[in-house]
Amino acid sequence: MLTMQEALARLTAYWTAQGCLTVQPMNTEVGAGTLNPATFLRVLGPEPWRVVYVEPSVRPDDSRYGENPNRLQTHTQLQVILKPDPGNPQELYLGSLTALGIDVTAHDVRFVEDNWASPALGAWGLGWEVWLDGLEITQFTYFQQAGGLNLDPPSVEITYGIERIVMALQNKQHFKEIEYSPGISYGEVFGQSEYEMSRYYLDDADVDANRRLLEIYAAEAQRLLDAGLPVPAHTYVLKCSQAFNVLDSRGAVSTADRAAEFARMRRLAGDVARLWQARREELSHPLGVVTPLPPAVVSEEAPPGTGPRTLVFEIGTEEMPPGEARAARAQLLRELTERLGATRLGHGDVRVHATPRRLIAVVGEVAAREDDHVRTVKGPKATAPEQAVAGFARSQGVSADSLRTADFNGVPHLVVERHEAGRAAPAVLGEVLAKVAGGLRSAKNMRWSDPGLSFTRPIRWLVALWGDDVVPVAVSALRAGRETRVLRTAAAPRVSVASAETFMETLAINGVVADAEDRRELIVTGAQDLVWDTGRIDLAGEDALIETITYLVEQPTPLLGTFDERYLELPAAVLTTVMRKHQRYLAVRDADGALLPMFVTVANGQVDVELVRAGNEAVLRARYEDAAFFYRADRQTPPAAMRERLRRLTFTDKLGSMADRADRIAALATTLADEPSPTLLRAAALVKFDLGSQLVTEMTGLAGVMARDYALNAGETRAVAQAVYEAELPRHAGDDLPAGVAGALLSLADRLDLVAGLAATVGLPTGSSDPFAVRRAVLGLIAVHRAHPALSGISLTEALTAAAAAQPVEVAARVPADAGEFLARRLEQVLVEEGHPVDRVRAVLPHAGRPSFADLLLAQLGRLSAEPEFLALAEAIQRARRIVPDGTAAAYDPALLKEPAEVTLHEAVRAVRAEPAPADLSGFTAVAGRITRPVHAFFDDVFVMADDPAVRAARLGLLACVRDLGSDLLDWPQLRL
Amino acid sequence: MLTMQEALARLTAYWTAQGCLTVQPMNTEVGAGTLNPATFLRVLGPEPWRVVYVEPSVRPDDSRYGENPNRLQTHTQLQVILKPDPGNPQELYLGSLTALGIDVTAHDVRFVEDNWASPALGAWGLGWEVWLDGLEITQFTYFQQAGGLNLDPPSVEITYGIERIVMALQNKQHFKEIEYSPGISYGEVFGQSEYEMSRYYLDDADVDANRRLLEIYAAEAQRLLDAGLPVPAHTYVLKCSQAFNVLDSRGAVSTADRAAEFARMRRLAGDVARLWQARREELSHPLGVVTPLPPAVVSEEAPPGTGPRTLVFEIGTEEMPPGEARAARAQLLRELTERLGATRLGHGDVRVHATPRRLIAVVGEVAAREDDHVRTVKGPKATAPEQAVAGFARSQGVSADSLRTADFNGVPHLVVERHEAGRAAPAVLGEVLAKVAGGLRSAKNMRWSDPGLSFTRPIRWLVALWGDDVVPVAVSALRAGRETRVLRTAAAPRVSVASAETFMETLAINGVVADAEDRRELIVTGAQDLVWDTGRIDLAGEDALIETITYLVEQPTPLLGTFDERYLELPAAVLTTVMRKHQRYLAVRDADGALLPMFVTVANGQVDVELVRAGNEAVLRARYEDAAFFYRADRQTPPAAMRERLRRLTFTDKLGSMADRADRIAALATTLADEPSPTLLRAAALVKFDLGSQLVTEMTGLAGVMARDYALNAGETRAVAQAVYEAELPRHAGDDLPAGVAGALLSLADRLDLVAGLAATVGLPTGSSDPFAVRRAVLGLIAVHRAHPALSGISLTEALTAAAAAQPVEVAARVPADAGEFLARRLEQVLVEEGHPVDRVRAVLPHAGRPSFADLLLAQLGRLSAEPEFLALAEAIQRARRIVPDGTAAAYDPALLKEPAEVTLHEAVRAVRAEPAPADLSGFTAVAGRITRPVHAFFDDVFVMADDPAVRAARLGLLACVRDLGSDLLDWPQLRL
Repeated sequence: MLTMQEALARLTAYWTAQGCLTVQPMNTEVGAGTLNPATFLRVLGPEPWRVVYVEPSVRPDDSRYGENPNRLQTHTQLQVILKPDPGNPQELYLGSLTALGIDVTAHDVRFVEDNWASPALGAWGLGWEVWLDGLEITQFTYFQQAGGLNLDPPSVEITYGIERIVMALQNKQHFKEIEYSPGISYGEVFGQSEYEMSRYYLDDADVDANRRLLEIYAAEAQRLLDAGLPVPAHTYVLKCSQAFNVLDSRGAVSTADRAAEFARMRRLAGDVARLWQARREELSHPLGVVTPLPPAVVSEEAPPGTGPRTLVFEIGTEEMPPGEARAARAQLLRELTERLGATRLGHGDVRVHATPRRLIAVVGEVAAREDDHVRTVKGPKATAPEQAVAGFARSQGVSADSLRTADFNGVPHLVVERHEAGRAAPAVLGEVLAKVAGGLRSAKNMRWSDPGLSFTRPIRWLVALWGDDVVPVAVSALRAGRETRVLRTAAAPRVSVASAETFMETLAINGVVADAEDRRELIVTGAQDLVWDTGRIDLAGEDALIETITYLVEQPTPLLGTFDERYLELPAAVLTTVMRKHQRYLAVRDADGALLPMFVTVANGQVDVELVRAGNEAVLRARYEDAAFFYRADRQTPPAAMRERLRRLTFTDKLGSMADRADRIAALATTLADEPSPTLLRAAALVKFDLGSQLVTEMTGLAGVMARDYALNAGETRAVAQAVYEAELPRHAGDDLPAGVAGALLSLADRLDLVAGLAATVGLPTGSSDPFAVRRAVLGLIAVHRAHPALSGISLTEALTAAAAAQPVEVAARVPADAGEFLARRLEQVLVEEGHPVDRVRAVLPHAGRPSFADLLLAQLGRLSAEPEFLALAEAIQRARRIVPDGTAAAYDPALLKEPAEVTLHEAVRAVRAEPAPADLSGFTAVAGRITRPVHAFFDDVFVMADDPAVRAARLGLLACVRDLGSDLLDWPQLRL
Repeated sequence: MLTMQEALARLTAYWTAQGCLTVQPMNTEVGAGTLNPATFLRVLGPEPWRVVYVEPSVRPDDSRYGENPNRLQTHTQLQVILKPDPGNPQELYLGSLTALGIDVTAHDVRFVEDNWASPALGAWGLGWEVWLDGLEITQFTYFQQAGGLNLDPPSVEITYGIERIVMALQNKQHFKEIEYSPGISYGEVFGQSEYEMSRYYLDDADVDANRRLLEIYAAEAQRLLDAGLPVPAHTYVLKCSQAFNVLDSRGAVSTADRAAEFARMRRLAGDVARLWQARREELSHPLGVVTPLPPAVVSEEAPPGTGPRTLVFEIGTEEMPPGEARAARAQLLRELTERLGATRLGHGDVRVHATPRRLIAVVGEVAAREDDHVRTVKGPKATAPEQAVAGFARSQGVSADSLRTADFNGVPHLVVERHEAGRAAPAVLGEVLAKVAGGLRSAKNMRWSDPGLSFTRPIRWLVALWGDDVVPVAVSALRAGRETRVLRTAAAPRVSVASAETFMETLAINGVVADAEDRRELIVTGAQDLVWDTGRIDLAGEDALIETITYLVEQPTPLLGTFDERYLELPAAVLTTVMRKHQRYLAVRDADGALLPMFVTVANGQVDVELVRAGNEAVLRARYEDAAFFYRADRQTPPAAMRERLRRLTFTDKLGSMADRADRIAALATTLADEPSPTLLRAAALVKFDLGSQLVTEMTGLAGVMARDYALNAGETRAVAQAVYEAELPRHAGDDLPAGVAGALLSLADRLDLVAGLAATVGLPTGSSDPFAVRRAVLGLIAVHRAHPALSGISLTEALTAAAAAQPVEVAARVPADAGEFLARRLEQVLVEEGHPVDRVRAVLPHAGRPSFADLLLAQLGRLSAEPEFLALAEAIQRARRIVPDGTAAAYDPALLKEPAEVTLHEAVRAVRAEPAPADLSGFTAVAGRITRPVHAFFDDVFVMADDPAVRAARLGLLACVRDLGSDLLDWPQLRL
C-alpha cells in the first residue's frame, strides 16, 4: 500500500525529475501553497521557475475537531509551478499520476472546468479540477494574474490534495485511517494536533489578541513595503491572512470588517507584487528571462493541388468548458463561412463539430483555385484632356490604346480592365484558417505559452488538410499539420491523417466521437440500457446535465454505480444535488419518479469499468457521508441558532450581512401583505435561516429545500416550513413557483430586496455580466406575481421604492424608477415570447408593476378583440385620438355644443365618466360601450374644425375626453386592432 | 555533482527506509529542528517515535545580508529523531553518509564531544559533533531532558547542517555558490530573501511591534495552557521565541529582559511538556509504549577452568570525551583492584587502557579458584548453660561435640569452624566485573537504551575473557562475550577473540592502538616526521592538545596540511586558536617559533590521505576566511563602538550586562590605584571592549589579544593596548601575567568583580561545579598580586568588599568575608604546593589578602628560621604563649612587678612597644630581639603563678604582651620552628 509519505516522496521525485526545484513549506501559517513565495512571488515577472513543494495548508474554518472524515484544519497540498507553460503540462501531470502507481489508461481521469480567483490576492486563473473516477484530486490552473499584475509568461499551477488522493488510493473512509507511514496512521500522527488546533480556531483563540496581531502584522507589512523589502512584507501579509482567518473561524468578523480586511490585504499583496517585480528587475532577473516561442513559419509557396477536395480544419485544445465548446463551435461556423464567402473559392457545405478537446470544420468540395476575375480600374472621364488620359494609361502600365470606356453613374469614364487569375486553394485557405483560428474568443479568455493567442483554454495543435495536402496555416507559434491527437490514454495518442476525406474516420476509429449528437445518443441510449430492468432516467429533467456531459467526454462510456440504500433517507434534493451538480451523475428513478440507490456516470474512453465504478461509488459514498454528517448536525441545531449564524455571512460589501438581508426581506414581506398571517410572520422570522446550516453552506442550491426540512424537524407548522421553502422559489427559469401566499410574499420581498440593493450599489445588469443574477430575480418577481392573481394589487414598482428605502446605503431617486423600467422590459420580453402580439403587450405594459393585472388585461384583450362591440368602441376612441392634437386637455364648455350629435356624445361621455372607473377591460367595455355610436354619429354629423375657435375648442375637448377613456387600462396608441 | 535538493531527498529516503516518518517543517519560524513539535513534544513520554524532516532554521542573529560565506539567517537542518535509541545509531548515521555518496572508509569521520543544552527549553543532552575531515557536519545528541522532564526512554537526535555538508561535497567557498538544483545556485534561489530578511532582522524590524507581539504570544500560550491545549500553546511558545530573537538581533533586549524572557519561556515550555505528557497518557499513548530492554542473563553455573590465566575485560563504548576516558581508566583500575582484592582469587598485576571507544583491563595470572578458607562462627561463652550450647549447635547444624573454643577479648567462647571452598574464577570474576562495569560513572552521566546503566556515553558491548573462556558477566541488558569491535570502517568491524592472552594482539592487528602512550608516541613522532624538513612542533606548548588528540583517535594517522600564506597576516593567536581549539590541529613553526602556513591533523584509521588532507584544508580555509572576514570588519569598527555593543551582552541574569561589568572593573581598578595613570584611565575606559567584536564573539579565547590588536589599530598607545590585553591575564593556569601596573590593576579588578558578584548571587564554588570559573579567578588574583610586589599594599580582601558593594544586587555582609576565606584557602594550597612548609604557610595566611606580602614573610621566614637570634625570639614568644591562658589581655600594672627579672622584661617590652610597628619580619626581629633574653631570664627567675592573684595577673599580663609581639605579622601558634 502506498503510504502518504511515500506518495509525497514520489510526487516530489517525479517533478524534480521534470526540472522542478524542491523547496520547503512556508514557515508561517498559510491557507494554501499558492501563498508560499515560491508561488506568489515567483510567478511574477519574466524569470523562468519550476518548483515542487509540500504545503501544509491551514484553514481555520475547516476545523472539525478531527471528526469529519474529509475535512481538516490543516491539509496537505503538494504544489507544482511550471513557468513558462511547457506546452504539455497535462501530459506531465498524467505522468505524475503514473508515478503514484495510478494506471491512467484504466481509470477515468478528466479535466473539469474550475476556475480560480483570490480577490484578496488580486489573483486569478483558468483551469480545471482533475477528476480521478469522479474524485477531485487536483486543481490545475493557468495563472493569469497575481497581486493585480498580469503574468507574462503565465504559470501553470498544479495543486494536489494529498489526503484525498491517498484516501482514494488506500480506500479509506476517514482521513485518520490513512496509512501515513508503514504501520502508523494519520490519526496517530496528527490526530491530537487536529483536535487541539480545531479547539483553538473554533473555541479558544483570543479574539482581542488576534485583532491586535492583525493590526501589528498589517502595520509591519506596510512599513516593510515602505522600506522596499517585499520578502518580509509578504511574510507579514501572510500573517495578516492567518490572523484574519482565525478571527473569522471564531465568528468575530463583521461584514464591514471583512470588506475592509479584504481590501487591505488586496492592496498590500498588490504592493508586494509590484515591489518584488521591481526588485527582480533591479537585480537583472537572476534566473534569466523566458524567451517567448517564435512565430511559426509556413512556406509562402503553397503547392497547388487538384480539386475539388474536402477541407478539414481541426483546432486542438485542452479541455474547454462545455458552454465554451458549444459557443466556439458556432463561432467557427460563422467565421469560416463568412471568410470563405469573402474569397472566390468555390466550396460546398461547411459543417462544424466540437468536443472538449477540439473544434473541427469540414468543408466539402473546395475548388483547387479561386475563380478568375476581371478587375476594372476607373480612370478619368472619357471627356478628359488627352494629357490626363495618357497619364492614366502610363500609371497603369498600359498603352492609351488599350483603355476602354465604362459608365459610372451614367458618366462614361476611361477604364483599364485587369484579368486576375484566382489564387490556389492552399494559399487562400491558409490565410482564411489562420484568421479563423487566431480570432477565436470565448467569454473569458486566457493566455498560455503561445505569445499571440488567447482563448478559453490553450490551443495546442492544428490540423489543416485540403484533400491529401496540408494547408499552410501559421497562427502565432502554431503551424498546422496532418497530425491529430486522440485520447491521451491511447497507445498512440498522436495520429497522422492521410487526407481530409479520411479525417473524421480516423478520429472515429481512434475512439473520438467528434459529433455532439452522436455523443449524446451514446450517452442517452447507454444510460437507458444500463437501467432498463430497474428504473429509468428522467431525460427531460436531466436535459441540461446530459448536454453538459456531452461536452465533457470525447468517447462516452456510461456505467452504472450504486450507493447504499440508507442514504435514501437523506432528502432527495440532497442526493440529486450531489449527483448532478458535484458529480455530473444521472440519477435513476423508479416508475413513480422516486430515486433508486444507483446512478449513471459517463467515463471518457475505454476505462476499466469495474475500477472506475468502484472509484465513483467511493466518491459518492464519501459525499453522501459528508452530507449525512452535516444533515445530522444541522438537525441538532435549532433554526434560530442557524438564523443567528447569518450575521457572519456577508451578502455584499455594502449591503450588510445575510442576516441584515433576511431582516429586510421579513419586514418587506410583512408590509406587502394586507394583513400578515401568523404563518407569514413566523416564516418571515425564519426566512433564509438554512443559509446558516452546514449542508446549505456546502450546497447552496439546497437553500429553501433544507429550510423546509429543518423547520419541520424543529416542530414548525407545515405551512411555515413550506413558506420558508417557497421564499426561495423560483431558483431558475422553469422552476416551481410559490403556491402559498406567505411563500409568494417572501419570494417577492427577497427578490425586491436583491434588485433594489444591487441596483443601488452595483447597478442593473448590462450585457452578459450579471454576477448576482439580478435578471433572474426580476424574472422571478414577474413569475411569482403572475402566479398569484390574489396579489395583483401589489405594485412591484412601488414595492421596489420601498425596498430601496430599506437598504443600508443611500439610494438615488432614479434607482427604483430604473429598476421598474428594467422590470417592464423583462415583462415585455416574457409576454412577447409567450406569443402575445407585440401591440397588445405594449398596450398593457404601463401595468408592468402588476404583471398579473397585465395578464388579465391581455386575456381580456384576446377575448374582446374578437367582439365587434369592443372593436367599434376601440375604433371610436382611436378616431377621437387621431383628430385631437397632442396636448389637448379633456375639458370643454358644454354650453358651446349645440349640434344634436355633439350633445348626444357629450351626454354619453358624461354618463360614462359618472360611472366608477372600471377595474378591467370587461367592465370598461360595458361602461364605455355607450359612447361608440355617439362618436361615430358625431364624426358623421359634426365638422370638428369649426371656424369659431371656441366651438372648435369645445368639440376637441369633448373628443379628448373620448380619447382618454380607458387610458388607465391600456396604452391605446400601442394597440393595432 | 550532488545538488542540495538531492542531498535532502537522499537523506530523507535513507531515514525513511530506517523506519522514520517524514513530516514537514514547522509552519511558524523556529530556530532549530529541535523546536518542531515532532521533536520537542515527541521525545517526551514512553511512546516510540522515529522521524526525519527538513527544518529551515531561522537565526535572526546570524543575519549577514548574505555576505558572509558560511552564515545565514535561515539555514537548513535535516533532523532525525530515533526513540528509543536503536542501539546502533552511530552505525545508522554512518549509513546515511554513505547514502550521500560519502565513502566513510576513505574519509575521516569522527565523533567529537559536544554536549547540548537549551536553558530556555529546559532541555539538555550529551553527544558529539560529527567531523568529516575536520568539518562539523552533524550534531548527534542523546536527549536526556526536555521541558525540564527526564526523558524515558531517551531519544537520539541527529541534526545535519545541510548547507555545510553540501558546500563540502561540492567544494564551494560561499553558500550562494551551492548548486541547489541542477543549474540553479543557492544564491539564485534564496539570495534575495537572505538579504531582505537580514535587513528585517538587523535594521528594519519594528522594536515596539515585536515587543507587543512577544507579549501577545506569551499571553496566548498561557491561556492555551490553562485551557489544556499543549499543541497550540507550544506554537505560541515558538512564536515568543522568534519575537524575542528578532528583538535581540535588533539590539533591543536589555539584560533584565533577557533573564525574564528566558525564565518565562522556560516556564511555558515546561508547562507545555508536562501538559503534553499528561494528554498522551489520557489518550493511552496512541503510538504504544517502548518496551525496555530485558536484563541480560548468564548461566549461574560457570564452567571451571584451569589457571592461572590472563583476564581481559573490555568495556566498549561510543566515543567518550577525552577527559572522561582518562578518568574512567583510573576508575577502572581502582575499582577492579579493590574488588579483586576483596576476593580470595590469586592474580597478578592489573593494567588498564583507554581509547575513545573502550576501556580495557588486563589482569595477569588469575588463579582458577579462590583459596579455600576457614570461617569461625562465634557462639555463646564457654561457660554458658548446656541448653544454650545445644541451641547454638543446633542452629549451626552441627553436633555439640564438634564445637570448639576460642578467645574473644580474652573470654573463651564456643565456636564453629566452617571450612569453605574457594569459588571458581569465572563465578568470582563474573560478579566482580559486573559490579565494576555497572558502577562506572563520569562527571556527567547519561542514559540510553539500556535501562540500568548510566555513563558518560553509551556502553555498547563487553568482552570478558579468562584465558579461553568467556566470563559470565551480565550488566543490565548487556552480556559479555568474546566479540570485540574494531574501527567502524574496518571490513569486519566485529572480531571474535580467541583468548584473553591474544586480545591485545587482536586489537593491534586490527589497527586499534589500545595504549594511550603508544598512541601519543605515534602522534608525536608522526607529526615530527611530517614536518622535519620544514619546521617543528612545539611539543611543550601543544602538550594538552596532544593529550586530547590521544583520546580522540584509536589509530592515529597524522597528516600534514597547508594553508594559504596570506592568512599569516591574521594575528597568530587567531590562527592557533582556530587550529587548536576548533580543529585540534597541531601548529607548525619555524625555528624562531613563528607560524608556518601548515598544520598537522591526526585522522583516525587508514583514511585516504589526499582526500582527508584536502577536506581539512578546505575547513581551515573556510574558518580562516571567516576569521579574516570578521577581522577586517572589526578593524573598521572603533573600539568605542564595540564597547557600546557590550550593553547587549549579558554577563549573568543578576549581574547586568557586560558593559555594566566593564564599568565596574574600570571603577574598581581606578580605586585600587594610588594615583591612576593616564594609561590606566584610558585602558579602563576600553576594558573588555573586544567582547563586542565579531572575532571574539566567535572565539572568546581571543579576548584581550584582539583588544590589543584593535586598540593599536585604532591608534591607542602601545601601553594602553597592552593594558587592555593584560587585563585578561592570566586566562588559565600557567598563563602569562600582566607585566604593567595598569594591566595588573585591571586584571585584579576584573577578577575581584567576578568573584564578588558570583559569590553574592550564585555562591562560591563547591566540589567540581564551577561554571563561571571563580576558582580560576581567585587563583588569578593571587598570581597577579604576587607578581606585583609594588601592589602589595592592596588588600584583596578589602578590595572584595569594595567590589561587593559595587554589585547591582544586595550583597550579604558575610559574602566578602567568605570570599576572603575562599581566597585564603586557595593561597594556602598554592603555597603548600610550591613546597613551603605547611606551618609557615599557615603562619602567614592571615595576610592572604596581600599574597605578595605573604610571599615576603615566607621568604623572610625561610631565611630567619636558620638564624639563632630569630629562633630564640620565637621560642621566647612561644614560651609566653604556652603559659598565658587564652583570653588574657596584654595589659598589667607595672607597679605590681617587683622581681628584677620581671622588671627587666617589663622594660624590654615597653621599649619594643614604643617602637613603630615593624613592617616585616626582618624589622620585627631587629626590634623585638631585645626581649629574647629577658623572657628567658624571667622564666628562669620568676614563678609566674604567684599566690597573690594581683601579682599573678600582672605577670600574665606582661607575658601576654610578649605573646602578642609580631602577631600582626605571623600567626605564631601555627609556626613549628
